[in-house]
Amino acid sequence: MFQSFDSSSNPSLSAPRLAALRDRLAKAGLDGFLVPRADEHQGEYVPARAARLHWLTGFSGSAGIALVLNKRAVIFVDGRYTLQVRNETDPALFTYDSLIDNPPVKWISKNLKPGTRLGFDPWLHTTGEIDLLNAAAIKADITLVAVEENPVDAIWQDQPAPPLTPVELQPLAFAGELARDKLARLAQAIAVEGATHAVLTDPSSLAWTFNIRGNDVPHTPLALGFAILAANGSHHLFMDRAKFSREIEAYLTQLAQLHQPEAFEAMVGDLAAQGARIALDPVLAAEKLRMIITAHNGTVVAAPDPARIPRATKNSAELDGSRAAHRRDGAAMVHMLCWLDQKKPGEIDEITAVTALENFRRQLGEETQMPLRDVSFATISGSGPNGAIMHYRVSHESNRKIAEGELFLLDSGAQYQDGTTDITRTIPMGQPSEEMRLRYTLVLKGLIAISCLRFPAGTRGADIDAFARLALWRHGLDFAHGTGHGVGSYLAVHEGPQRIAKTGTEKLREGMILSNEPGYYKQGSYGVRLENLIVVDPATPIDGGDIDMHGFETLTLAPFHRSMIVRDQLSPAELEWLNAYHARVLAEIGPMVDGQVLTWLEHACAPL
Amino acid sequence: MFQSFDSSSNPSLSAPRLAALRDRLAKAGLDGFLVPRADEHQGEYVPARAARLHWLTGFSGSAGIALVLNKRAVIFVDGRYTLQVRNETDPALFTYDSLIDNPPVKWISKNLKPGTRLGFDPWLHTTGEIDLLNAAAIKADITLVAVEENPVDAIWQDQPAPPLTPVELQPLAFAGELARDKLARLAQAIAVEGATHAVLTDPSSLAWTFNIRGNDVPHTPLALGFAILAANGSHHLFMDRAKFSREIEAYLTQLAQLHQPEAFEAMVGDLAAQGARIALDPVLAAEKLRMIITAHNGTVVAAPDPARIPRATKNSAELDGSRAAHRRDGAAMVHMLCWLDQKKPGEIDEITAVTALENFRRQLGEETQMPLRDVSFATISGSGPNGAIMHYRVSHESNRKIAEGELFLLDSGAQYQDGTTDITRTIPMGQPSEEMRLRYTLVLKGLIAISCLRFPAGTRGADIDAFARLALWRHGLDFAHGTGHGVGSYLAVHEGPQRIAKTGTEKLREGMILSNEPGYYKQGSYGVRLENLIVVDPATPIDGGDIDMHGFETLTLAPFHRSMIVRDQLSPAELEWLNAYHARVLAEIGPMVDGQVLTWLEHACAPL
Repeated sequence: MFQSFDSSSNPSLSAPRLAALRDRLAKAGLDGFLVPRADEHQGEYVPARAARLHWLTGFSGSAGIALVLNKRAVIFVDGRYTLQVRNETDPALFTYDSLIDNPPVKWISKNLKPGTRLGFDPWLHTTGEIDLLNAAAIKADITLVAVEENPVDAIWQDQPAPPLTPVELQPLAFAGELARDKLARLAQAIAVEGATHAVLTDPSSLAWTFNIRGNDVPHTPLALGFAILAANGSHHLFMDRAKFSREIEAYLTQLAQLHQPEAFEAMVGDLAAQGARIALDPVLAAEKLRMIITAHNGTVVAAPDPARIPRATKNSAELDGSRAAHRRDGAAMVHMLCWLDQKKPGEIDEITAVTALENFRRQLGEETQMPLRDVSFATISGSGPNGAIMHYRVSHESNRKIAEGELFLLDSGAQYQDGTTDITRTIPMGQPSEEMRLRYTLVLKGLIAISCLRFPAGTRGADIDAFARLALWRHGLDFAHGTGHGVGSYLAVHEGPQRIAKTGTEKLREGMILSNEPGYYKQGSYGVRLENLIVVDPATPIDGGDIDMHGFETLTLAPFHRSMIVRDQLSPAELEWLNAYHARVLAEIGPMVDGQVLTWLEHACAPL
Repeated sequence: MFQSFDSSSNPSLSAPRLAALRDRLAKAGLDGFLVPRADEHQGEYVPARAARLHWLTGFSGSAGIALVLNKRAVIFVDGRYTLQVRNETDPALFTYDSLIDNPPVKWISKNLKPGTRLGFDPWLHTTGEIDLLNAAAIKADITLVAVEENPVDAIWQDQPAPPLTPVELQPLAFAGELARDKLARLAQAIAVEGATHAVLTDPSSLAWTFNIRGNDVPHTPLALGFAILAANGSHHLFMDRAKFSREIEAYLTQLAQLHQPEAFEAMVGDLAAQGARIALDPVLAAEKLRMIITAHNGTVVAAPDPARIPRATKNSAELDGSRAAHRRDGAAMVHMLCWLDQKKPGEIDEITAVTALENFRRQLGEETQMPLRDVSFATISGSGPNGAIMHYRVSHESNRKIAEGELFLLDSGAQYQDGTTDITRTIPMGQPSEEMRLRYTLVLKGLIAISCLRFPAGTRGADIDAFARLALWRHGLDFAHGTGHGVGSYLAVHEGPQRIAKTGTEKLREGMILSNEPGYYKQGSYGVRLENLIVVDPATPIDGGDIDMHGFETLTLAPFHRSMIVRDQLSPAELEWLNAYHARVLAEIGPMVDGQVLTWLEHACAPL
């Protein structure tokens, strides 16, 4: 199994750790310290070594930050984790606040006394974050102190070592472009930004640029490291050689000078001292890098990671890979949905379902000679009230059977070498209520609205997010997450900068893969989420129109549950989309399944 | 007339002025200079003294900036002005670029040589603009130079003096809150931001805070000046006393210490030297203020103008005033629309229409004892192809008759003491084409989509902008401006921060007045725009829903042109809204008109 069901949190460990940290802070003359859920690479997953927030507080979510003060400590999380953080941490030690509505930058202005000395580890915060924190510090009249050594590391005696998993090549058949050619493109982009160099801190950018993958963090095939790319083509890659086979090392040597990670800091400083103009991405690069560059009289050029947009706009090899991955994954999901439909209320539980689904994926991977490499994230398998916890992760403690009249929310994905998948379906057990069916249908209407949408070239994700909500809004309902995130190509299942959300300020461009996943959550009762991956089509004019318009191609192939759909709530156009989608699912997945699964699929995909 | 039809631009004047400016720059050791369409107050209208961009280039639009270099000069304007700037300026002297897609901050990175010394007047750029410019300057390796004296002023020999129009009180019956109470609220807000003082540079904020109005700029009842508000209640107002009657001076003396404008700079410096923590709004406050505060070792607290949100969220007296103003203005518009309907193709021209409309407004103002104080902006009166120029301003040169088969776009507004109006209707002359009717209907569908929308509390204008576009998008069409802007209460017809646009990052709150004005423009052929003002309702739950939802109340009262509406294109819900709206127009405006106008209105408002 690529996923464990052990609860990884033990709130009782926090008290002594917090006390030790406070002792350390007092000795360092600090009144407080920020402990973000982040490493030097700002990815969604961090290696065990960098799971400082988890180690200190027990909170295991993928986003959050603790602010530890002398007498109190606050954990800030977003709407996905408001329930989870209370379950995983000791409320006698921590209070909780919203990472969105009242983040540290707001909180400290309102709560810290003038003169407070607040420490932070400059490797764990981006330059953009520090700019905001500095503005807040000015308002609050407090001092931010960048520490040399992280005080959590100092007290964490059995802190794990950095991961050293083998690096492997991503074949050209799936990458679609030689690393050499990508590097040439990036070197040009760096020059256009007026920089001599760009530091890549995002391992997804390293993976894409060098056509390599690794296994340093869970669920995303990353090899942690850094690169310094140069406009003049003299590139440097900082990655532990213990990760390289002889072939990989020979391959990478042709692309860049290879260095051990320990050499990174000195190289940045040396380049700065030589007058380099070094591009740092304000949303990715560690403040420490800016400090090093400035201390050596170099120039920091604030510019987006040059690999972000090229990586986000998939080429035809990547799209073909994704389509193949989605057929395979769709066949696995169809097996799963058929299997679920045969179960009686109370017969299976959340963990059984996760296990079954991973097995179906393994089986289909083997049948198609494209084995399952990992799940793309820990499957969200929530029955009844657990379905209302947006990022629920089942453990042996929380596990529950799927009972009569309940909804079962199943959000999962796979990593195959040809593509990354992410799909959510919500399945009824026994007889759902009319309220459940209505709200399921409203969520489906939101998904269809995005699926059918044509929008002008240049439109941003933020501009279209609300179309996924309108049907819910009409009934006084909404959901507290974005409509969709970017998805990588055998890379991170949550990939920036593309997204469909209020924060989606990036233009949607041809080849970007995104999720389309509206939902509805009734706390303590049930959750509905429906998710397909979609890809931005080329922009073309509509007959009689003036301008080029994009649309979306749907990648995900699995039926929606017909008994959940209130047909009268669908407009003729919506019904037409749904029937065409189901016909396509049958046409593409049908040939991959047989026997009772095929029979089930034919029924599931019959016109409504 | 509150509007002139003389062309105020003479492109031939630019060559010697540009030469004189370049001469001046050379002597100052500058390679270039920025000439924004802005004064120290960053308002939409500037006094004649500050119309430097217009004086230098001929361009008379309300937004834009020129970058004057040794050998070339570029004028940056947004989509509203791409045609106008070419008509008003000399293409032998200027090139043109997009203020949105390629603004100076981008342009200079790509075009200026390293080492370039680029001058700017720090009174005319906000701190936020300068932060962006500085980042761009680092990228381009150029130097930004804040000049002591504006070189345009130095060569502008007959530059007008600052305006000195009388200040008058805005009565409590329309303001709804005593200035004393507003000042107490603002003092508290300043303390919450961690500041000791806030500088108000926006005359709209002065007007709102002190319940005063003036006449220093066209079309907006502003008295130019500055204020320094203090958390401890010791406020300062900087405004020329020549503007005050004895009564006004006595009134203002109770609220703040009064100073001549010349004392402003020194007072900011003195407070900074005393250790003040001074709040400046990054989108409003001049860079010069930050320079003064920093030079005197004070602290700049970046925070929004504390009056912006209180001013934007109208109280019940302001809303009642606006409703009354809209009934009066609606009656004037109904007179106008009836009058237009009686005209034959070729019988009237754009200027005749503007004159007639202003006369109807004067007449209704006199009849209701609430005289027309001004038009809220120069009426956009565009027939045929002129209708496709989004911010067209008719002059004797551009004036044209409204011919058979043409559309006539009429966008206008009024300033009454109880409220500010802004309305657009598009009227056919003779027989419109089917394409015109279809596209008119698509625009109307966009307006209705916003009018009917219910949206969760906390939704921003950016989140709903695209609903006004969806009907157009389905036909491959769009419009290149925001859906709506904020509107003041007997103040600026374009008021921030509220807006419905991609840039509308402010939450929509109860009491905010906005325009709802989708459009469609076929360059060289015709334009359609339909505009109502709307106000955000209190948030209430929908039956069966979970959360509080806002909606909009429509303020504007005038019928849409029924012969332009393709009934089949409207959904039953859209038709229902339209018929209910027309019934309401008849019920509210009917009693204010009689005779043939009433007959016309009854026909215009009959159910479709």
